[in-house]
Amino acid sequence: MRWIRYTIDGHTHYGMLTDADKVKQVVGDPFQGYETTSTVLKLEDLRLEVPVVPPTFYCVGLNYVKHIGAEGMSIPAKPDVGYRANNALVAHGQDVIMPADSTRIHYEGELVVVIGKKLKNIDAGQVKDCIFGYTIGNDVSERNWQASDRTFWRAKNSDTFKPMGPWITTEADLRTMETAVSVNGKESIRFSTGDMLFGVEEFISTMSRYLTLYPGDMIWMGTDGKSPDLQHGDRVDVSLTGLGTLSNRFVKEGAA
Amino acid sequence: MRWIRYTIDGHTHYGMLTDADKVKQVVGDPFQGYETTSTVLKLEDLRLEVPVVPPTFYCVGLNYVKHIGAEGMSIPAKPDVGYRANNALVAHGQDVIMPADSTRIHYEGELVVVIGKKLKNIDAGQVKDCIFGYTIGNDVSERNWQASDRTFWRAKNSDTFKPMGPWITTEADLRTMETAVSVNGKESIRFSTGDMLFGVEEFISTMSRYLTLYPGDMIWMGTDGKSPDLQHGDRVDVSLTGLGTLSNRFVKEGAA
Repeated sequence: MRWIRYTIDGHTHYGMLTDADKVKQVVGDPFQGYETTSTVLKLEDLRLEVPVVPPTFYCVGLNYVKHIGAEGMSIPAKPDVGYRANNALVAHGQDVIMPADSTRIHYEGELVVVIGKKLKNIDAGQVKDCIFGYTIGNDVSERNWQASDRTFWRAKNSDTFKPMGPWITTEADLRTMETAVSVNGKESIRFSTGDMLFGVEEFISTMSRYLTLYPGDMIWMGTDGKSPDLQHGDRVDVSLTGLGTLSNRFVKEGAA
Repeated sequence: MRWIRYTIDGHTHYGMLTDADKVKQVVGDPFQGYETTSTVLKLEDLRLEVPVVPPTFYCVGLNYVKHIGAEGMSIPAKPDVGYRANNALVAHGQDVIMPADSTRIHYEGELVVVIGKKLKNIDAGQVKDCIFGYTIGNDVSERNWQASDRTFWRAKNSDTFKPMGPWITTEADLRTMETAVSVNGKESIRFSTGDMLFGVEEFISTMSRYLTLYPGDMIWMGTDGKSPDLQHGDRVDVSLTGLGTLSNRFVKEGAA
């Protein structure tokens, strides 16, 4: 099943994508509870929103071998948890604004895991039952700020630097999934999504030793390879097998 | 004015502390809008909750000179923004659980600034108008994990490691404010709250160049000095002039 979040007539709702272009609206949300309604809308009439705004926004900093090498980092011996910030989230189809003084902006196409049940202290084998679904994230990064600043605050959390969507898909097979990123329609990178240093079940089980995860929390699972330097006007499409395509245009702040 | 958030009969509300022990209940919240009600409650009958759960939880990692020296860090040349996680928040009076495998737990008494208006790209002089109020935070830290892990995930964001409260006070004078921390009733540290490397107005103005801040967002402003290693059963009180006292007991996980 696919869940979308959208705005129509100034109100934001959740709905189920019942086929390629029809949305069945619900009251409530899939995390705290919902009821279906008789309202059916056309996908093309809706303004998509990010499919969830999490209580806490988790990520895996370094989780694919080629990306770690490309960024000159060493392979971590254990899974350490990172964080991103809700202010930076934008939906599928919205522009990424490259700040006027940014110089080296990269994409990072990522699998996003969305939590469905409150969990603490669980084994890897119990993780699957607590996952609500999967979506796509683009962990946009300014590499010069990433190198110069003590934290990733503006390098990774400037407004609009976290495109996510277009929707949440409740089933996925990570063993056969591929992540592909295109720039202006030309494929730039492709990798096996499941080829992680720390897999979804191991990572979430490790977190849960110290942290309670709540419905709607999400974990961005990291990226592989290296992006080209993006330019004003570039369109970046991140596609994951079975999850759809997240598409955003990159626009320089203050550009006409 | 003082705002508190509390649970009674299974429901969580905001209210105004009208004198030392009376609470006037409201419908809604002070960030998105509220209406007063005729319900007046006794403070002692309420279970306090953290006074706000922020959309994004910001902090200043290193902001007082003695603390930076005590932790063997160098003084930062510019304000870099840090993050903490909502899972770790606990209210005044709730226990801090020290994980079974933790070995060196410290307190960090901090001023917390709570945002009241959406803001982006503002000058330092405009910041004051966007602040809703102030409360107290204890940025509990496990120093060995802080040294050994690549991120602060379990060192600073383990469940219950972020006590905050007891309430939000809408006015404060940072020039005369002092932060004092006591362990089991004995004063352990005292410093001038306003003696920051990066002041509230400068810090928020700098953030706003790249980030939109929203009502309910909060910034923990850092700490000074060095904590003793806390033991099972210790009670830590953090008092800030005019803001009250945040009090929590520290309990070892699994201890009888």
